[in-house]
Amino acid sequence: MTITVRRLAPASLPRNPAFAQGVSVEGPARTIYVGGQNGIDAEGKVVADDVRGQTEQALRNVEAVLAEAGAELTDVVHWRIAVAQGASLAEGFAGFQEVWGTRGEPPAISVDVVGQGNPAFLVEITATAVVAAS
Amino acid sequence: MTITVRRLAPASLPRNPAFAQGVSVEGPARTIYVGGQNGIDAEGKVVADDVRGQTEQALRNVEAVLAEAGAELTDVVHWRIAVAQGASLAEGFAGFQEVWGTRGEPPAISVDVVGQGNPAFLVEITATAVVAAS
Amino acid sequence: MTITVRRLAPASLPRNPAFAQGVSVEGPARTIYVGGQNGIDAEGKVVADDVRGQTEQALRNVEAVLAEAGAELTDVVHWRIAVAQGASLAEGFAGFQEVWGTRGEPPAISVDVVGQGNPAFLVEITATAVVAAS
Repeated sequence: MTITVRRLAPASLPRNPAFAQGVSVEGPARTIYVGGQNGIDAEGKVVADDVRGQTEQALRNVEAVLAEAGAELTDVVHWRIAVAQGASLAEGFAGFQEVWGTRGEPPAISVDVVGQGNPAFLVEITATAVVAAS
Repeated sequence: MTITVRRLAPASLPRNPAFAQGVSVEGPARTIYVGGQNGIDAEGKVVADDVRGQTEQALRNVEAVLAEAGAELTDVVHWRIAVAQGASLAEGFAGFQEVWGTRGEPPAISVDVVGQGNPAFLVEITATAVVAAS
Repeated sequence: MTITVRRLAPASLPRNPAFAQGVSVEGPARTIYVGGQNGIDAEGKVVADDVRGQTEQALRNVEAVLAEAGAELTDVVHWRIAVAQGASLAEGFAGFQEVWGTRGEPPAISVDVVGQGNPAFLVEITATAVVAAS
């Protein structure tokens, strides 16, 4: 079975290679809801004290969750990036763009600055992904 | 093909014409994930310095993204409205209600007050919409 | 018709009985988007002045919305818990875990600390649920 996943980029909105303005999904899909991931390892230890390093680890964690469902980072259709107050949003987004830059078409994205449940967490990344139903 | 989209309004919860308490979607659908939209134009310029004006522009941007996928604002099933700290939530929600008031059945909504990636952004609107698969 | 809902728990991530790292959904489903629920009753009155009591009421409200769509709390695949700044996240999460502990397999979760539209609201809970299409 196949699905149609289409990135949306209306001419009335700015373009950025790191994200689409929206993503349209049609067809028999498996949808993966990835819970908020932080920059921690399997023991729950925070792996870095900067937002860039935590972003890279959080993306690795998203990747691990997706892998268990037979999906990859390129199957993500929407990211939510929640950066901690006081952390450098630019730094986190740069890490995100770098990881993304080599991977193909971008997903939709929402970004905001919030408090985190654990003060050591500088970023939380939540994702929704889709793959064709098997 | 048809889908069934049903607004949920249990008697145990308050009613508000601007939003439903939930929305149920069943059937072969095209789902559109609209990334967080701000009050900016195609050049990325912030079009207003008040939350009401930025809300109106952000909704126009959501509308443009949906249009590219053959959908309309009335096809939105969930909004997330993230208002900047210090901005008037009431003002933003009033703009939202006014736009919505003329359009039909409301979607589900989540509202919170956050920091924004760009300090000039007073609001970010993220949406999920569904239309019947073609 | 049947759907396959599978909780994801990669070995590279910590385990917590209160949540999954992600949830995979495949098959003809009815998806329910529950708007942000607060600790209020049918008249809009805030029922408690602590995050634990508001969390319990907000979960009752989510349950009422789901019931109208023929779904239950155990059908939730993703929670977003937004706790107010200054409120005790641990207290809210404890209430959440207690409610969840008796109910079965957990959903994915995202947690953050934000401002609320109404200063009396200490928590807002948003949910996505799926059940097999009828």
